[in-house]
Amino acid sequence: MARAWHLTSRPTGMPTADNFALKELAQAELGDRMVQVKNSYLSVDPYMRGRMNDVKSYVPPFQIDAPMEGGAVGEVIESRDPAFAVGDQVMHMLGWRDEAVAAGTSLNKIPALGVEPREFLGMLGLTGATAYFGLLEAASAKAGDTLFVSAAAGAVGSAVVQIAKAKGMTVIGSAGGAEKCDYVRSLGADQVIDYKAGPLVKSLGKAAPDGIDVYFDNVGGDHLDAAFAHAKQNARFAICGMIDVYNAAEPQAFRYIMRVISMRIRVQGFIYTDYLPRMGEFYRDMGGWIASGAVKSRDTVVDGLERTPEAFLGLFSGANTGKMLVKL
Amino acid sequence: MARAWHLTSRPTGMPTADNFALKELAQAELGDRMVQVKNSYLSVDPYMRGRMNDVKSYVPPFQIDAPMEGGAVGEVIESRDPAFAVGDQVMHMLGWRDEAVAAGTSLNKIPALGVEPREFLGMLGLTGATAYFGLLEAASAKAGDTLFVSAAAGAVGSAVVQIAKAKGMTVIGSAGGAEKCDYVRSLGADQVIDYKAGPLVKSLGKAAPDGIDVYFDNVGGDHLDAAFAHAKQNARFAICGMIDVYNAAEPQAFRYIMRVISMRIRVQGFIYTDYLPRMGEFYRDMGGWIASGAVKSRDTVVDGLERTPEAFLGLFSGANTGKMLVKL
Repeated sequence: MARAWHLTSRPTGMPTADNFALKELAQAELGDRMVQVKNSYLSVDPYMRGRMNDVKSYVPPFQIDAPMEGGAVGEVIESRDPAFAVGDQVMHMLGWRDEAVAAGTSLNKIPALGVEPREFLGMLGLTGATAYFGLLEAASAKAGDTLFVSAAAGAVGSAVVQIAKAKGMTVIGSAGGAEKCDYVRSLGADQVIDYKAGPLVKSLGKAAPDGIDVYFDNVGGDHLDAAFAHAKQNARFAICGMIDVYNAAEPQAFRYIMRVISMRIRVQGFIYTDYLPRMGEFYRDMGGWIASGAVKSRDTVVDGLERTPEAFLGLFSGANTGKMLVKL
Repeated sequence: MARAWHLTSRPTGMPTADNFALKELAQAELGDRMVQVKNSYLSVDPYMRGRMNDVKSYVPPFQIDAPMEGGAVGEVIESRDPAFAVGDQVMHMLGWRDEAVAAGTSLNKIPALGVEPREFLGMLGLTGATAYFGLLEAASAKAGDTLFVSAAAGAVGSAVVQIAKAKGMTVIGSAGGAEKCDYVRSLGADQVIDYKAGPLVKSLGKAAPDGIDVYFDNVGGDHLDAAFAHAKQNARFAICGMIDVYNAAEPQAFRYIMRVISMRIRVQGFIYTDYLPRMGEFYRDMGGWIASGAVKSRDTVVDGLERTPEAFLGLFSGANTGKMLVKL
């Protein structure tokens, strides 16, 4: 019997394990054009926190007492859609469960790029595409720019660091704690800030005495404020995520936001799905960088469906280095 | 003997009359290429508050115990620069004083557009150019857009309302109090919000049930937060001024800033001087609108050099409708 994590109550502030329950799924008859998939890896991502609120956003909210959803890869074990054969590796959005039954139209066959399927939950999936299009399109970053990226040891951040180096930028990454900072350094960052070691505005000023051209924001809050404080004229900010804000009950306070005017800063929010028509470009560039070793992926893997909420909650306490995955 | 207002101390928070003193200026010998001007109108503008802080910005800070500066128009009364004759009407940046002695190269003859010289401190000066380039360039506003503009009864705001209507936009303006709201309505705004009458987030939601495409920000703070709350997808914000913030000791707090991501909002800071090479376009369009009556200017005029600080301080208590000027 397939099992799936259900959202049993909406969190206020930081979610807890009590917001979720693992329940058996009623076995659906495999209808025409339907496919059954045995999942091998599940993705947990910060954006899922937003879907737990009952507000209209770019994706609809999760429903109470319904199964959670999210990125997953797996193998087809039964198919009534002629486009899929038993044994095919697919990616889809019916994660948080061990087996999924879905219309063939909602599955994507994994492209034959010679990499592990789970990469399509990371560097070749939402994570990598978010880094790629956010950096190069939303922030118009280019060779020679000085880039600041927050959560640089995280899934998206570590991709941003490596793409920026491959493109010839000077990279300043922030992370929390010595171990993560070492990891960011190992990715090629020119300077690394341990945000737990002192006030960010000071550390960033020291790391970038001439200011920053580009800020890739994964966290909001103090990091965003420090970027306002040290932006050069005509700086561009790509706002990708605000992990500091997702669980915050209090409004975010900014001391340096007025520099948006004096420095003519451009702040651009974005979502990678806006660039889906251009995934070909992304697969070509990112596939090339992975093949050449210019971009390396590192995952934090949690074992077992039972631990999916734990993996998700770990995103907010900094438990992951690189992409956080659940292995089934 | 010429007199000028001097900055005698740097304000912390809201400036007061005690920060300024009116002093006689030592009579300088009129050197070669120098011009003496008798000022007729002085401009006071919110940006001057920023120059009172001792911080590097897009204009250098005012110096303590030195004369204040600012936009002014006047008549040449003596000239040792062959480019200027006695009787010429000129605009320049040596305001806050009754007479100015300046190098001819720092004066601009007022173009012969058949309008009052004082218009070049308003609709045809910094004020109008800020509205024009901010709206049409920084915010990329176009016909059919729904625009929200704060401080719509102010100098820049009232210009924005009229330019937007001339360009075929739907305009929602905010102002404080019934009298100012009536004025904004008289400029052609489709809807007017009295921000003193209730919470902005609610009022803006009512005025723009489908959301806003463009926000022209003159105030920051709660207005900016309300604009985040009601932005449509791909909304563009031009950040022109943050009058709520200039004197604030506390950081600005935002409850809806995360919508930058979900709505892919673009926030663009700007300063009109970036567009100086394009003033020809501006004179052509704005001159035409003034001639046709599509754009009307209204000033708040305070009489007498002695009252210059009072006029300046009035900008922060909402004493002005339209451009605030001092008449000498």
